[in-house]
Amino acid sequence: MITDDPRELRRTDFPVLREVPTRWGDVDVYGHVNNVVHYAMFDSVVNGWLIEATGTDIRQGDEVGLVVETGCRYLAELDFPSVLTVGLGLERLGNSSVSYRLAIFDAAESPAAAGRFVHVYVDRASRRPVTVPHRVRQALAVLGAPAP
Amino acid sequence: MITDDPRELRRTDFPVLREVPTRWGDVDVYGHVNNVVHYAMFDSVVNGWLIEATGTDIRQGDEVGLVVETGCRYLAELDFPSVLTVGLGLERLGNSSVSYRLAIFDAAESPAAAGRFVHVYVDRASRRPVTVPHRVRQALAVLGAPAP
Amino acid sequence: MITDDPRELRRTDFPVLREVPTRWGDVDVYGHVNNVVHYAMFDSVVNGWLIEATGTDIRQGDEVGLVVETGCRYLAELDFPSVLTVGLGLERLGNSSVSYRLAIFDAAESPAAAGRFVHVYVDRASRRPVTVPHRVRQALAVLGAPAP
Amino acid sequence: MITDDPRELRRTDFPVLREVPTRWGDVDVYGHVNNVVHYAMFDSVVNGWLIEATGTDIRQGDEVGLVVETGCRYLAELDFPSVLTVGLGLERLGNSSVSYRLAIFDAAESPAAAGRFVHVYVDRASRRPVTVPHRVRQALAVLGAPAP
Repeated sequence: MITDDPRELRRTDFPVLREVPTRWGDVDVYGHVNNVVHYAMFDSVVNGWLIEATGTDIRQGDEVGLVVETGCRYLAELDFPSVLTVGLGLERLGNSSVSYRLAIFDAAESPAAAGRFVHVYVDRASRRPVTVPHRVRQALAVLGAPAP
Repeated sequence: MITDDPRELRRTDFPVLREVPTRWGDVDVYGHVNNVVHYAMFDSVVNGWLIEATGTDIRQGDEVGLVVETGCRYLAELDFPSVLTVGLGLERLGNSSVSYRLAIFDAAESPAAAGRFVHVYVDRASRRPVTVPHRVRQALAVLGAPAP
Repeated sequence: MITDDPRELRRTDFPVLREVPTRWGDVDVYGHVNNVVHYAMFDSVVNGWLIEATGTDIRQGDEVGLVVETGCRYLAELDFPSVLTVGLGLERLGNSSVSYRLAIFDAAESPAAAGRFVHVYVDRASRRPVTVPHRVRQALAVLGAPAP
Repeated sequence: MITDDPRELRRTDFPVLREVPTRWGDVDVYGHVNNVVHYAMFDSVVNGWLIEATGTDIRQGDEVGLVVETGCRYLAELDFPSVLTVGLGLERLGNSSVSYRLAIFDAAESPAAAGRFVHVYVDRASRRPVTVPHRVRQALAVLGAPAP
Protein backbone atom coordinates (compact mmCIF):
# COMPACT_ATOMS: atom_id res chain seq x y z
CA MET A 1 0.00 0.00 0.00
CA ILE A 2 2.79 2.37 0.90
CA THR A 3 4.45 1.57 -2.43
CA ASP A 4 1.44 2.85 -4.35
CA ASP A 5 0.69 6.55 -4.45
CA PRO A 6 -0.43 7.32 -0.91
CA ARG A 7 -2.06 10.55 -2.02
CA GLU A 8 -4.88 8.48 -3.46
CA LEU A 9 -5.79 6.94 -0.11
CA ARG A 10 -9.17 7.93 1.27
CA ARG A 11 -10.89 7.49 4.61
CA THR A 12 -13.05 4.78 3.05
CA ASP A 13 -9.92 2.69 2.42
CA PHE A 14 -9.65 2.04 6.15
CA PRO A 15 -11.96 -0.21 8.17
CA VAL A 16 -11.15 1.65 11.40
CA LEU A 17 -11.01 5.43 11.86
CA ARG A 18 -9.95 7.06 15.13
CA GLU A 19 -9.71 10.71 16.12
CA VAL A 20 -6.46 12.10 17.52
CA PRO A 21 -6.06 15.74 18.55
CA THR A 22 -2.70 17.42 18.20
CA ARG A 23 -0.88 18.98 21.16
CA TRP A 24 0.80 22.37 21.37
CA GLY A 25 4.26 20.83 21.73
CA ASP A 26 3.74 18.65 18.63
CA VAL A 27 4.47 21.72 16.52
CA ASP A 28 8.14 22.43 15.94
CA VAL A 29 10.07 25.52 14.96
CA TYR A 30 8.79 25.29 11.38
CA GLY A 31 5.23 25.81 12.57
CA HIS A 32 3.99 22.33 11.68
CA VAL A 33 3.59 19.03 13.49
CA ASN A 34 7.06 17.49 13.79
CA ASN A 35 7.69 14.30 11.83
CA VAL A 36 8.25 12.31 15.03
CA VAL A 37 4.73 12.94 16.28
CA HIS A 38 3.12 10.97 13.45
CA TYR A 39 4.60 7.83 14.98
CA ALA A 40 3.16 8.70 18.40
CA MET A 41 -0.22 8.81 16.67
CA PHE A 42 0.34 5.48 14.88
CA ASP A 43 1.43 3.86 18.15
CA SER A 44 -1.59 5.20 20.02
CA VAL A 45 -4.06 4.22 17.31
CA VAL A 46 -2.78 0.66 16.89
CA ASN A 47 -2.51 -0.05 20.61
CA GLY A 48 -5.64 1.85 21.58
CA TRP A 49 -7.63 -0.06 18.99
CA LEU A 50 -6.10 -3.38 20.05
CA ILE A 51 -7.00 -2.79 23.71
CA GLU A 52 -10.58 -1.99 22.80
CA ALA A 53 -11.05 -4.61 20.06
CA THR A 54 -9.56 -7.45 22.08
CA GLY A 55 -11.27 -6.33 25.26
CA THR A 56 -8.07 -7.06 27.16
CA ASP A 57 -5.13 -5.05 28.38
CA ILE A 58 -2.62 -6.22 25.80
CA ARG A 59 0.20 -5.07 28.05
CA GLN A 60 -0.54 -7.70 30.67
CA GLY A 61 -0.51 -10.91 28.62
CA ASP A 62 2.25 -13.53 28.34
CA GLU A 63 2.76 -12.46 24.74
CA VAL A 64 3.48 -8.86 23.85
CA GLY A 65 3.67 -7.15 20.49
CA LEU A 66 7.04 -5.51 19.90
CA VAL A 67 7.46 -2.99 17.10
CA VAL A 68 10.01 -4.22 14.56
CA GLU A 69 9.46 -1.78 11.70
CA THR A 70 7.73 1.53 11.07
CA GLY A 71 7.66 3.99 8.22
CA CYS A 72 5.91 7.17 7.18
CA ARG A 73 5.53 9.37 4.13
CA TYR A 74 4.65 13.00 4.83
CA LEU A 75 2.33 14.54 2.26
CA ALA A 76 1.00 17.73 3.87
CA GLU A 77 1.73 19.83 6.92
CA LEU A 78 -0.37 19.49 10.08
CA ASP A 79 -1.07 22.10 12.74
CA PHE A 80 -2.30 22.72 16.29
CA PRO A 81 -5.07 22.89 17.29
CA SER A 82 -6.76 20.27 15.17
CA VAL A 83 -8.44 16.93 15.56
CA LEU A 84 -7.04 14.49 13.04
CA THR A 85 -8.56 11.27 11.78
CA VAL A 86 -6.26 8.28 11.63
CA GLY A 87 -7.23 5.36 9.41
CA LEU A 88 -6.12 1.85 10.38
CA GLY A 89 -6.09 -1.20 8.14
CA LEU A 90 -4.35 -4.55 7.85
CA GLU A 91 -1.48 -4.88 5.42
CA ARG A 92 -0.44 -8.43 6.21
CA LEU A 93 -1.00 -11.03 8.90
CA GLY A 94 1.90 -13.45 9.32
CA ASN A 95 2.52 -16.28 11.72
CA SER A 96 4.01 -14.10 14.44
CA SER A 97 3.75 -10.65 12.87
CA VAL A 98 1.03 -8.14 12.02
CA SER A 99 1.64 -5.29 9.55
CA TYR A 100 -0.74 -2.38 9.78
CA ARG A 101 -1.23 0.38 7.22
CA LEU A 102 -2.18 3.82 8.49
CA ALA A 103 -3.00 7.25 7.17
CA ILE A 104 -3.56 10.60 8.85
CA PHE A 105 -6.29 12.88 7.55
CA ASP A 106 -6.80 16.55 8.30
CA ALA A 107 -9.77 18.39 6.76
CA ALA A 108 -8.70 17.48 3.20
CA GLU A 109 -9.81 14.45 1.22
CA SER A 110 -6.22 13.33 0.63
CA PRO A 111 -4.14 12.13 3.56
CA ALA A 112 -1.49 14.29 5.19
CA ALA A 113 0.63 11.22 5.90
CA ALA A 114 0.64 7.49 5.25
CA GLY A 115 2.59 4.84 7.08
CA ARG A 116 3.09 1.29 8.20
CA PHE A 117 3.64 -0.27 11.60
CA VAL A 118 4.73 -3.87 12.18
CA HIS A 119 4.29 -5.83 15.41
CA VAL A 120 6.00 -9.12 16.12
CA TYR A 121 4.56 -11.06 19.01
CA VAL A 122 7.08 -12.42 21.46
CA ASP A 123 7.00 -14.25 24.75
CA ARG A 124 7.26 -11.58 27.43
CA ALA A 125 10.03 -13.31 29.34
CA SER A 126 12.16 -14.94 26.64
CA ARG A 127 11.49 -12.29 23.95
CA ARG A 128 11.27 -15.14 21.40
CA PRO A 129 8.64 -14.95 18.63
CA VAL A 130 5.33 -16.68 19.22
CA THR A 131 2.17 -17.14 17.14
CA VAL A 132 -0.05 -14.05 17.02
CA PRO A 133 -2.37 -14.53 20.03
CA HIS A 134 -5.87 -15.82 19.33
CA ARG A 135 -7.56 -12.76 20.83
CA VAL A 136 -5.54 -10.52 18.47
CA ARG A 137 -6.44 -12.68 15.44
CA GLN A 138 -10.08 -12.39 16.38
CA ALA A 139 -9.80 -8.61 16.50
CA LEU A 140 -7.95 -8.52 13.18
CA ALA A 141 -10.95 -10.13 11.49
CA VAL A 142 -12.54 -6.69 11.83
CA LEU A 143 -9.71 -5.37 9.67
CA GLY A 144 -10.33 -8.03 7.05
CA ALA A 145 -8.06 -10.85 8.21
CA PRO A 146 -9.39 -14.41 7.78
CA ALA A 147 -11.33 -15.60 10.84
CA PRO A 148 -9.01 -17.42 13.24
CA MET B 1 -5.72 27.52 44.88
CA ILE B 2 -2.77 25.20 44.75
CA THR B 3 -2.05 25.94 48.38
CA ASP B 4 -5.49 24.66 49.41
CA ASP B 5 -6.26 20.96 49.28
CA PRO B 6 -6.45 20.21 45.57
CA ARG B 7 -8.30 16.95 46.24
CA GLU B 8 -11.39 19.02 46.91
CA LEU B 9 -11.44 20.57 43.46
CA ARG B 10 -14.37 19.53 41.27
CA ARG B 11 -15.17 19.97 37.58
CA THR B 12 -17.66 22.68 38.56
CA ASP B 13 -14.83 24.80 39.95
CA PHE B 14 -13.62 25.44 36.41
CA PRO B 15 -15.36 27.70 33.87
CA VAL B 16 -13.76 25.83 30.96
CA LEU B 17 -13.47 22.06 30.56
CA ARG B 18 -11.62 20.44 27.68
CA GLU B 19 -11.11 16.79 26.77
CA VAL B 20 -7.60 15.43 26.25
CA PRO B 21 -6.93 11.79 25.33
CA THR B 22 -3.75 10.12 26.54
CA ARG B 23 -1.23 8.59 24.15
CA TRP B 24 0.47 5.19 24.38
CA GLY B 25 3.89 6.77 24.89
CA ASP B 26 2.60 8.93 27.75
CA VAL B 27 2.80 5.88 29.98
CA ASP B 28 6.21 5.18 31.47
CA VAL B 29 7.85 2.10 32.90
CA TYR B 30 5.70 2.30 36.04
CA GLY B 31 2.55 1.79 33.98
CA HIS B 32 1.10 5.26 34.53
CA VAL B 33 1.15 8.55 32.69
CA ASN B 34 4.58 10.11 33.26
CA ASN B 35 4.68 13.32 35.32
CA VAL B 36 6.01 15.31 32.37
CA VAL B 37 2.93 14.65 30.26
CA HIS B 38 0.64 16.60 32.59
CA TYR B 39 2.42 19.75 31.48
CA ALA B 40 1.91 18.88 27.81
CA MET B 41 -1.79 18.75 28.63
CA PHE B 42 -1.73 22.08 30.50
CA ASP B 43 0.14 23.71 27.60
CA SER B 44 -2.29 22.36 25.04
CA VAL B 45 -5.37 23.31 27.03
CA VAL B 46 -4.27 26.88 27.77
CA ASN B 47 -3.09 27.61 24.23
CA GLY B 48 -5.85 25.68 22.50
CA TRP B 49 -8.43 27.58 24.51
CA LEU B 50 -6.70 30.92 23.87
CA ILE B 51 -6.64 30.32 20.11
CA GLU B 52 -10.34 29.50 20.08
CA ALA B 53 -11.49 32.11 22.59
CA THR B 54 -9.55 34.97 21.02
CA GLY B 55 -10.40 33.84 17.51
CA THR B 56 -6.82 34.60 16.49
CA ASP B 57 -3.66 32.61 16.05
CA ILE B 58 -1.90 33.79 19.19
CA ARG B 59 1.42 32.66 17.74
CA GLN B 60 1.35 35.30 15.01
CA GLY B 61 0.84 38.51 17.00
CA ASP B 62 3.40 41.11 17.97
CA GLU B 63 2.99 40.04 21.59
CA VAL B 64 3.50 36.45 22.61
CA GLY B 65 2.83 34.76 25.94
CA LEU B 66 5.95 33.13 27.35
CA VAL B 67 5.66 30.62 30.17
CA VAL B 68 7.46 31.84 33.28
CA GLU B 69 6.22 29.38 35.89
CA THR B 70 4.42 26.06 36.05
CA GLY B 71 3.65 23.60 38.81
CA CYS B 72 1.71 20.41 39.38
CA ARG B 73 0.59 18.20 42.23
CA TYR B 74 -0.06 14.58 41.32
CA LEU B 75 -2.95 13.01 43.20
CA ALA B 76 -3.81 9.81 41.34
CA GLU B 77 -2.31 7.73 38.56
CA LEU B 78 -3.55 8.06 34.98
CA ASP B 79 -3.52 5.45 32.23
CA PHE B 80 -3.81 4.82 28.49
CA PRO B 81 -6.23 4.65 26.79
CA SER B 82 -8.43 7.25 28.45
CA VAL B 83 -9.97 10.57 27.64
CA LEU B 84 -9.28 13.02 30.43
CA THR B 85 -11.09 16.23 31.25
CA VAL B 86 -8.92 19.24 31.99
CA GLY B 87 -10.43 22.14 33.90
CA LEU B 88 -9.15 25.66 33.23
CA GLY B 89 -9.70 28.71 35.41
CA LEU B 90 -8.13 32.06 36.12
CA GLU B 91 -5.96 32.40 39.20
CA ARG B 92 -4.79 35.95 38.69
CA LEU B 93 -4.66 38.57 35.95
CA GLY B 94 -1.76 41.01 36.28
CA ASN B 95 -0.56 43.85 34.11
CA SER B 96 1.57 41.67 31.86
CA SER B 97 0.94 38.22 33.31
CA VAL B 98 -1.88 35.70 33.45
CA SER B 99 -1.90 32.86 35.99
CA TYR B 100 -4.14 29.93 35.15
CA ARG B 101 -5.23 27.16 37.50
CA LEU B 102 -5.81 23.72 36.05
CA ALA B 103 -6.90 20.27 37.12
CA ILE B 104 -6.99 16.93 35.35
CA PHE B 105 -9.95 14.62 35.91
CA ASP B 106 -10.21 10.95 35.05
CA ALA B 107 -13.47 9.09 35.79
CA ALA B 108 -13.33 9.99 39.49
CA GLU B 109 -14.94 13.01 41.13
CA SER B 110 -11.62 14.16 42.61
CA PRO B 111 -8.88 15.39 40.31
CA ALA B 112 -5.89 13.22 39.41
CA ALA B 113 -3.69 16.33 39.26
CA ALA B 114 -3.87 20.06 39.89
CA GLY B 115 -1.54 22.72 38.62
CA ARG B 116 -0.79 26.26 37.66
CA PHE B 117 0.57 27.85 34.52
CA VAL B 118 1.77 31.45 34.23
CA HIS B 119 2.14 33.41 31.00
CA VAL B 120 3.97 36.71 30.75
CA TYR B 121 3.28 38.67 27.59
CA VAL B 122 6.33 40.05 25.84
CA ASP B 123 7.08 41.87 22.64
CA ARG B 124 8.03 39.20 20.12
CA ALA B 125 11.18 40.97 18.98
CA SER B 126 12.53 42.59 22.14
CA ARG B 127 11.21 39.94 24.57
CA ARG B 128 10.33 42.77 26.98
CA PRO B 129 7.09 42.57 29.00
CA VAL B 130 4.03 44.28 27.58
CA THR B 131 0.47 44.70 28.77
CA VAL B 132 -1.70 41.61 28.33
CA PRO B 133 -3.20 42.07 24.83
CA HIS B 134 -6.77 43.35 24.64
CA ARG B 135 -8.01 40.26 22.77
CA VAL B 136 -6.63 38.06 25.56
CA ARG B 137 -8.27 40.18 28.26
CA GLN B 138 -11.56 39.87 26.42
CA ALA B 139 -11.23 36.10 26.37
CA LEU B 140 -10.28 36.02 30.05
CA ALA B 141 -13.61 37.61 30.92
CA VAL B 142 -15.05 34.15 30.18
CA LEU B 143 -12.85 32.85 32.99
CA GLY B 144 -14.15 35.52 35.36
CA ALA B 145 -11.66 38.35 34.83
CA PRO B 146 -13.08 41.89 34.93
CA ALA B 147 -14.20 43.08 31.50
CA PRO B 148 -11.36 44.95 29.76
CA MET C 1 14.86 27.52 47.57
CA ILE C 2 12.29 28.16 44.92
CA THR C 3 10.87 30.98 47.04
CA ASP C 4 14.22 32.81 47.02
CA ASP C 5 15.43 34.51 43.87
CA PRO C 6 16.42 31.62 41.61
CA ARG C 7 18.48 33.92 39.40
CA GLU C 8 21.14 33.92 42.09
CA LEU C 9 21.65 30.17 41.93
CA ARG C 10 25.04 29.07 40.64
CA ARG C 11 26.48 25.72 39.56
CA THR C 12 28.40 25.61 42.82
CA ASP C 13 25.14 25.54 44.75
CA PHE C 14 24.55 21.97 43.53
CA PRO C 15 26.47 18.91 44.75
CA VAL C 16 25.68 17.03 41.52
CA LEU C 17 25.92 18.38 37.97
CA ARG C 18 24.84 16.39 34.93
CA GLU C 19 24.92 17.23 31.22
CA VAL C 20 21.76 16.99 29.14
CA PRO C 21 21.70 17.79 25.41
CA THR C 22 18.57 19.26 23.89
CA ARG C 23 16.73 17.58 21.00
CA TRP C 24 15.42 19.15 17.81
CA GLY C 25 11.82 18.49 18.77
CA ASP C 26 12.28 20.14 22.17
CA VAL C 27 12.03 23.50 20.43
CA ASP C 28 8.50 24.73 19.83
CA VAL C 29 6.97 27.23 17.44
CA TYR C 30 8.46 30.14 19.41
CA GLY C 31 11.98 28.94 18.64
CA HIS C 32 12.88 27.99 22.20
CA VAL C 33 12.80 24.83 24.29
CA ASN C 34 9.18 24.22 25.25
CA ASN C 35 8.33 24.53 28.95
CA VAL C 36 7.35 20.86 29.15
CA VAL C 37 10.83 19.67 28.24
CA HIS C 38 12.39 21.06 31.41
CA TYR C 39 10.49 18.43 33.35
CA ALA C 40 11.79 15.67 31.07
CA MET C 41 15.27 16.88 32.02
CA PHE C 42 14.47 16.97 35.75
CA ASP C 43 12.99 13.46 35.56
CA SER C 44 16.01 12.11 33.70
CA VAL C 45 18.53 13.77 35.99
CA VAL C 46 16.91 12.64 39.25
CA ASN C 47 16.33 9.07 38.12
CA GLY C 48 19.57 8.74 36.18
CA TRP C 49 21.50 9.93 39.21
CA LEU C 50 19.56 7.62 41.54
CA ILE C 51 20.27 4.58 39.36
CA GLU C 52 23.99 5.36 39.32
CA ALA C 53 24.32 6.51 42.94
CA THR C 54 22.41 3.57 44.40
CA GLY C 55 24.03 1.10 42.03
CA THR C 56 20.66 -0.55 41.56
CA ASP C 57 17.87 -0.37 39.02
CA ILE C 58 15.43 1.62 41.11
CA ARG C 59 12.59 0.49 38.85
CA GLN C 60 12.87 -3.13 39.99
CA GLY C 61 12.62 -2.80 43.77
CA ASP C 62 9.64 -3.47 46.01
CA GLU C 63 9.47 0.26 46.74
CA VAL C 64 9.21 2.78 43.94
CA GLY C 65 9.42 6.56 44.02
CA LEU C 66 6.31 8.18 42.61
CA VAL C 67 6.34 11.87 41.71
CA VAL C 68 3.85 13.81 43.80
CA GLU C 69 4.85 17.39 43.04
CA THR C 70 6.96 19.29 40.52
CA GLY C 71 7.47 22.95 39.72
CA CYS C 72 9.63 25.14 37.53
CA ARG C 73 10.44 28.79 37.04
CA TYR C 74 11.65 29.76 33.59
CA LEU C 75 14.31 32.48 33.58
CA ALA C 76 15.86 32.41 30.12
CA GLU C 77 15.16 30.77 26.78
CA LEU C 78 17.01 27.61 25.75
CA ASP C 79 17.81 26.39 22.23
CA PHE C 80 18.86 23.44 20.11
CA PRO C 81 21.57 22.32 19.65
CA SER C 82 23.10 22.80 23.08
CA VAL C 83 24.39 20.73 25.94
CA LEU C 84 22.89 21.97 29.18
CA THR C 85 24.13 21.42 32.71
CA VAL C 86 21.53 20.42 35.26
CA GLY C 87 22.29 20.92 38.93
CA LEU C 88 20.78 18.56 41.48
CA GLY C 89 20.54 19.13 45.23
CA LEU C 90 18.50 18.02 48.19
CA GLU C 91 15.78 20.32 49.43
CA ARG C 92 14.31 18.08 52.12
CA LEU C 93 14.39 14.44 53.18
CA GLY C 94 11.23 13.28 54.91
CA ASN C 95 10.15 9.92 56.24
CA SER C 96 8.74 8.70 52.94
CA SER C 97 9.47 11.64 50.66
CA VAL C 98 12.50 13.27 49.04
CA SER C 99 12.35 16.82 47.67
CA TYR C 100 15.03 17.70 45.14
CA ARG C 101 15.98 21.18 43.94
CA LEU C 102 17.20 21.56 40.39
CA ALA C 103 18.47 24.22 38.04
CA ILE C 104 19.28 24.22 34.34
CA PHE C 105 22.32 26.13 33.12
CA ASP C 106 23.16 27.10 29.57
CA ALA C 107 26.42 29.00 28.87
CA ALA C 108 25.48 31.81 31.27
CA GLU C 109 26.38 32.03 34.94
CA SER C 110 22.75 32.43 35.97
CA PRO C 111 20.35 29.50 35.52
CA ALA C 112 17.85 29.38 32.67
CA ALA C 113 15.39 27.56 34.91
CA ALA C 114 15.01 26.40 38.49
CA GLY C 115 12.67 23.79 39.85
CA ARG C 116 11.70 21.21 42.37
CA PHE C 117 10.80 17.56 42.15
CA VAL C 118 9.27 15.50 44.96
CA HIS C 119 9.29 11.71 45.20
CA VAL C 120 7.18 9.74 47.65
CA TYR C 121 8.21 6.14 48.09
CA VAL C 122 5.41 3.62 47.97
CA ASP C 123 5.07 -0.12 48.02
CA ARG C 124 4.94 -1.22 44.38
CA ALA C 125 1.87 -3.40 44.85
CA SER C 126 -0.23 -1.53 47.40
CA ARG C 127 0.89 1.98 46.38
CA ARG C 128 0.97 2.89 50.10
CA PRO C 129 3.78 5.12 51.42
CA VAL C 130 6.84 3.44 52.88
CA THR C 131 10.04 4.71 54.46
CA VAL C 132 12.59 6.01 51.95
CA PRO C 133 14.66 2.89 51.11
CA HIS C 134 18.03 2.54 52.82
CA ARG C 135 19.95 2.46 49.52
CA VAL C 136 18.35 5.78 48.54
CA ARG C 137 19.18 7.36 51.91
CA GLN C 138 22.77 6.26 51.45
CA ALA C 139 22.89 7.93 48.06
CA LEU C 140 21.28 11.08 49.42
CA ALA C 141 24.19 11.51 51.84
CA VAL C 142 26.13 12.63 48.75
CA LEU C 143 23.60 15.46 48.41
CA GLY C 144 24.08 16.47 52.04
CA ALA C 145 21.45 14.38 53.82
CA PRO C 146 22.40 12.98 57.24
CA ALA C 147 24.01 9.54 57.01
CA PRO C 148 21.34 6.82 57.32
CA MET D 1 21.04 0.19 2.68
CA ILE D 2 17.87 -0.45 4.61
CA THR D 3 16.98 -3.21 2.11
CA ASP D 4 20.14 -5.15 2.98
CA ASP D 5 20.48 -6.84 6.34
CA PRO D 6 20.82 -3.94 8.77
CA ARG D 7 22.25 -6.24 11.44
CA GLU D 8 25.51 -6.22 9.52
CA LEU D 9 25.93 -2.47 9.79
CA ARG D 10 28.87 -1.32 11.91
CA ARG D 11 29.96 2.03 13.31
CA THR D 12 32.67 2.15 10.64
CA ASP D 13 29.98 2.20 7.93
CA PHE D 14 29.09 5.76 8.95
CA PRO D 15 31.21 8.85 8.29
CA VAL D 16 29.61 10.73 11.20
CA LEU D 17 28.95 9.37 14.69
CA ARG D 18 27.13 11.35 17.34
CA GLU D 19 26.28 10.52 20.94
CA VAL D 20 22.69 10.74 22.17
CA PRO D 21 21.69 9.91 25.75
CA THR D 22 18.27 8.42 26.44
CA ARG D 23 15.77 10.09 28.76
CA TRP D 24 13.69 8.51 31.52
CA GLY D 25 10.44 9.15 29.66
CA ASP D 26 11.77 7.50 26.49
CA VAL D 27 11.10 4.15 28.12
CA ASP D 28 7.54 2.89 27.81
CA VAL D 29 5.48 0.36 29.74
CA TYR D 30 7.43 -2.53 28.21
CA GLY D 31 10.63 -1.29 29.84
CA HIS D 32 12.41 -0.33 26.64
CA VAL D 33 12.84 2.84 24.60
CA ASN D 34 9.57 3.42 22.73
CA ASN D 35 9.69 3.10 18.94
CA VAL D 36 8.78 6.77 18.50
CA VAL D 37 11.91 7.98 20.26
CA HIS D 38 14.23 6.58 17.59
CA TYR D 39 12.86 9.21 15.23
CA ALA D 40 13.52 11.97 17.75
CA MET D 41 17.13 10.80 17.72
CA PHE D 42 17.31 10.70 13.92
CA ASP D 43 15.81 14.20 13.71
CA SER D 44 18.26 15.57 16.27
CA VAL D 45 21.29 13.93 14.70
CA VAL D 46 20.53 15.05 11.15
CA ASN D 47 19.65 18.62 12.09
CA GLY D 48 22.30 18.97 14.78
CA TRP D 49 24.94 17.79 12.35
CA LEU D 50 23.63 20.09 9.60
CA ILE D 51 23.76 23.12 11.88
CA GLU D 52 27.34 22.37 12.86
CA ALA D 53 28.59 21.23 9.45
CA THR D 54 27.09 24.15 7.55
CA GLY D 55 28.04 26.65 10.25
CA THR D 56 24.64 28.27 9.83
CA ASP D 57 21.31 28.07 11.58
CA ILE D 58 19.48 26.04 8.96
CA ARG D 59 16.16 27.16 10.43
CA GLN D 60 16.70 30.76 9.38
CA GLY D 61 17.42 30.45 5.65
CA ASP D 62 15.10 31.09 2.73
CA GLU D 63 15.16 27.36 1.99
CA VAL D 64 14.21 24.85 4.64
CA GLY D 65 14.46 21.08 4.61
CA LEU D 66 11.09 19.41 5.19
CA VAL D 67 10.92 15.75 6.08
CA VAL D 68 9.06 13.76 3.41
CA GLU D 69 9.85 10.20 4.43
CA THR D 70 11.27 8.32 7.40
CA GLY D 71 11.58 4.67 8.32
CA CYS D 72 13.14 2.49 10.98
CA ARG D 73 13.82 -1.16 11.65
CA TYR D 74 14.13 -2.11 15.31
CA LEU D 75 16.71 -4.81 15.99
CA ALA D 76 17.33 -4.74 19.74
CA GLU D 77 15.79 -3.10 22.78
CA LEU D 78 17.30 0.07 24.26
CA ASP D 79 17.18 1.29 27.85
CA PHE D 80 17.64 4.25 30.18
CA PRO D 81 20.12 5.38 31.30
CA SER D 82 22.48 4.91 28.39
CA VAL D 83 24.43 7.00 25.94
CA LEU D 84 23.81 5.75 22.42
CA THR D 85 25.91 6.32 19.33
CA VAL D 86 24.03 7.31 16.19
CA GLY D 87 25.73 6.80 12.83
CA LEU D 88 24.87 9.14 9.97
CA GLY D 89 25.60 8.57 6.30
CA LEU D 90 24.36 9.66 2.90
CA GLU D 91 22.06 7.34 1.00
CA ARG D 92 21.31 9.57 -1.97
CA LEU D 93 21.64 13.21 -2.97
CA GLY D 94 19.01 14.35 -5.45
CA ASN D 95 18.28 17.69 -7.02
CA SER D 96 16.07 18.92 -4.19
CA SER D 97 16.23 15.97 -1.79
CA VAL D 98 18.74 14.38 0.56
CA SER D 99 18.28 10.82 1.87
CA TYR D 100 20.23 9.97 4.97
CA ARG D 101 20.86 6.49 6.38
CA LEU D 102 21.17 6.13 10.13
CA ALA D 103 21.81 3.47 12.72
CA ILE D 104 21.65 3.48 16.50
CA PHE D 105 24.30 1.60 18.46
CA ASP D 106 24.22 0.63 22.10
CA ALA D 107 27.21 -1.23 23.61
CA ALA D 108 26.93 -4.07 21.07
CA GLU D 109 28.74 -4.28 17.75
CA SER D 110 25.48 -4.70 15.82
CA PRO D 111 23.04 -1.81 15.64
CA ALA D 112 19.90 -1.69 17.77
CA ALA D 113 18.06 0.11 14.99
CA ALA D 114 18.60 1.27 11.41
CA GLY D 115 16.65 3.87 9.52
CA ARG D 116 16.37 6.42 6.79
CA PHE D 117 15.38 10.07 6.80
CA VAL D 118 14.61 12.13 3.68
CA HIS D 119 14.67 15.92 3.45
CA VAL D 120 13.23 17.86 0.55
CA TYR D 121 14.32 21.48 0.38
CA VAL D 122 11.56 23.99 -0.24
CA ASP D 123 11.21 27.72 -0.38
CA ARG D 124 10.15 28.81 3.09
CA ALA D 125 7.29 30.98 1.86
CA SER D 126 5.92 29.09 -1.14
CA ARG D 127 6.77 25.58 0.13
CA ARG D 128 7.79 24.68 -3.43
CA PRO D 129 10.86 22.45 -4.00
CA VAL D 130 14.19 24.17 -4.62
CA THR D 131 17.69 22.91 -5.33
CA VAL D 132 19.54 21.64 -2.26
CA PRO D 133 21.30 24.77 -0.93
CA HIS D 134 24.99 25.15 -1.72
CA ARG D 135 25.99 25.25 1.96
CA VAL D 136 24.23 21.91 2.50
CA ARG D 137 25.90 20.33 -0.54
CA GLN D 138 29.24 21.46 0.82
CA ALA D 139 28.52 19.80 4.14
CA LEU D 140 27.32 16.62 2.42
CA ALA D 141 30.75 16.23 0.83
CA VAL D 142 31.85 15.11 4.30
CA LEU D 143 29.34 12.28 3.98
CA GLY D 144 30.73 11.26 0.60
CA ALA D 145 28.64 13.33 -1.79
CA PRO D 146 30.44 14.74 -4.87
CA ALA D 147 31.90 18.21 -4.23
CA PRO D 148 29.39 20.89 -5.26
